[in-house]
Amino acid sequence: MRRFNLDILRNELPTTKIPYIIENGSGEHFIWNRQVFTFLSTNKSTGNMFEVVTITGEKNECFPAHLHEKMYESILVTEGVLDIHLENKTLTLNRGDYVLIPPGLSHGYSMQAHRTKILTYTIDGNITEMYQFIGQQYSHSKHPAYISRAETLAKLDLETQFDIKFTDKNSTDSKILYWPSGEGDNVLTGDQLHSLITTQKDTEDNYIVVSTEGPIGDAIVSHYHEKHTETFYCFDGKVTMWVGEQSQEIVLYPGDFLHAPAGTIHSYRFDAHYSKMIGLLVPGLFEPFFRTLGEPYDFTTFPNEPQPLNFEKVIANIDTLDLKFVSHD
Amino acid sequence: MRRFNLDILRNELPTTKIPYIIENGSGEHFIWNRQVFTFLSTNKSTGNMFEVVTITGEKNECFPAHLHEKMYESILVTEGVLDIHLENKTLTLNRGDYVLIPPGLSHGYSMQAHRTKILTYTIDGNITEMYQFIGQQYSHSKHPAYISRAETLAKLDLETQFDIKFTDKNSTDSKILYWPSGEGDNVLTGDQLHSLITTQKDTEDNYIVVSTEGPIGDAIVSHYHEKHTETFYCFDGKVTMWVGEQSQEIVLYPGDFLHAPAGTIHSYRFDAHYSKMIGLLVPGLFEPFFRTLGEPYDFTTFPNEPQPLNFEKVIANIDTLDLKFVSHD
Repeated sequence: MRRFNLDILRNELPTTKIPYIIENGSGEHFIWNRQVFTFLSTNKSTGNMFEVVTITGEKNECFPAHLHEKMYESILVTEGVLDIHLENKTLTLNRGDYVLIPPGLSHGYSMQAHRTKILTYTIDGNITEMYQFIGQQYSHSKHPAYISRAETLAKLDLETQFDIKFTDKNSTDSKILYWPSGEGDNVLTGDQLHSLITTQKDTEDNYIVVSTEGPIGDAIVSHYHEKHTETFYCFDGKVTMWVGEQSQEIVLYPGDFLHAPAGTIHSYRFDAHYSKMIGLLVPGLFEPFFRTLGEPYDFTTFPNEPQPLNFEKVIANIDTLDLKFVSHD
Repeated sequence: MRRFNLDILRNELPTTKIPYIIENGSGEHFIWNRQVFTFLSTNKSTGNMFEVVTITGEKNECFPAHLHEKMYESILVTEGVLDIHLENKTLTLNRGDYVLIPPGLSHGYSMQAHRTKILTYTIDGNITEMYQFIGQQYSHSKHPAYISRAETLAKLDLETQFDIKFTDKNSTDSKILYWPSGEGDNVLTGDQLHSLITTQKDTEDNYIVVSTEGPIGDAIVSHYHEKHTETFYCFDGKVTMWVGEQSQEIVLYPGDFLHAPAGTIHSYRFDAHYSKMIGLLVPGLFEPFFRTLGEPYDFTTFPNEPQPLNFEKVIANIDTLDLKFVSHD
């Protein structure tokens, strides 16, 4: 177990694997046309495990059809409306809707509402370097009201330097994975609904993505993971977290982001009548925990009455789950 | 100027015109099928000036085509997707999109996302009594995961007792007013964009609705209005307000609501990189203030650099505006 005795880093990306918070609208920004790329995690801050970027832009801002040979890309819409253009169809995503784009699948996008914002997770790529190459450093988190002229992409340069090929044809038979908000492989633990919107199978164990919603509740037991890193993005409501050796209290409101590398002691509690957070867990190995503690669930929102937890099943299988409980007394 | 020396009332509706706050998910709830009606203001709490209700529901929940003879109805989508069915077309509204339904215009709705939530303003009606008649008291703010059987509407009873006629034909030539998020009659004051999404002309001076967005900024000057009541609904970010004689500090996060009747001293400040609040002002008389202090604005989001305010023009016209400044020293 690592020991972090200092205050949690805030609104700054570290160059070693330590916990940190980026508040909504803070962070490093790059602009290209009327799209602002904000870095919540980079390969440097995660030790090449993954990158997390939000993109905020104006209606009609777009990115042309392309594919990545190696890189997985997850996109969750947090504001506005995004059209994802695939080889043979267009998917329209609203706030809370999610897609996983596997390597080899051609995709482009266009924003369909005046203020559209997406949260992207990429694994096995170097997308933040590409955004720095494409864009200019920028001191705002929001796209500008207007620009004087549009920039085009230096496609050949990009193809040479980054894992990107501009094409509207797929190089594999991989399919897009699409979950509307509330849907997924749903598991209930007590009063919390976990929508597994990316499972280990979907990414060959590279990562999982879990959307968790619930009512005002109790804090979960303080714990840490030896092998996997977690990030928490508050989507709705209010999430109070306790992080690190000294249980530093952190409150996440919508758009706030916490990075908790393996070894970080943490706990959370939902403090609003409806809270929802999006978790990225890398590598993908913690899925059995949700299925052990909880039960499959056929509905798209949490129930009024909490259901029992299979806590004894977790204890019985604790050696196979990447989970260490911490007692604070 | 009225004097309110007590703590601001919280999560409870008063029976006299005093300031109060309803936090997101709090308030009185009624359920009908999988729709939850939450009362933020009732005729009793506003002295018959207006009513404010949020409706949260599951995908495919709907309300059949109907019209109101006298009542104006404003609907702003705060979560999910809502289809509004008109005599000859269907409008699809996403988060932030708004319609004004004038008296005599037939309309119905259906929810298109698993968690859809709308904010409704009604003037000259008794809609909260109707929702109490239709629904059952309920102790949650969120719709249930499932219900055992669907309820139908007692249409004849409703038509007898309330201002509602079930029909898919309009009784007047009135048209729906529709503004996508970010659009409206846009006015810039300094660094804040006010989208006038309902003007005095739209409602024969009954009310106006103003959507205001801005960056982290300064507090506006403390003031009160002698003639009109304001309500503030935080849509995005963080809004700190100071309310009443003793400048009680109140922080509004998304979904929180403040009612400030005429005479209530108040001020606000935007504290997030992107904040947005929706204001209902009743009666409709304060529109000239925005046009006096600000300038027409052609864009859908606030600029990076604040523009000058026409403050001297406000001072020169102060007698014609319902505005009294308060100095706290």
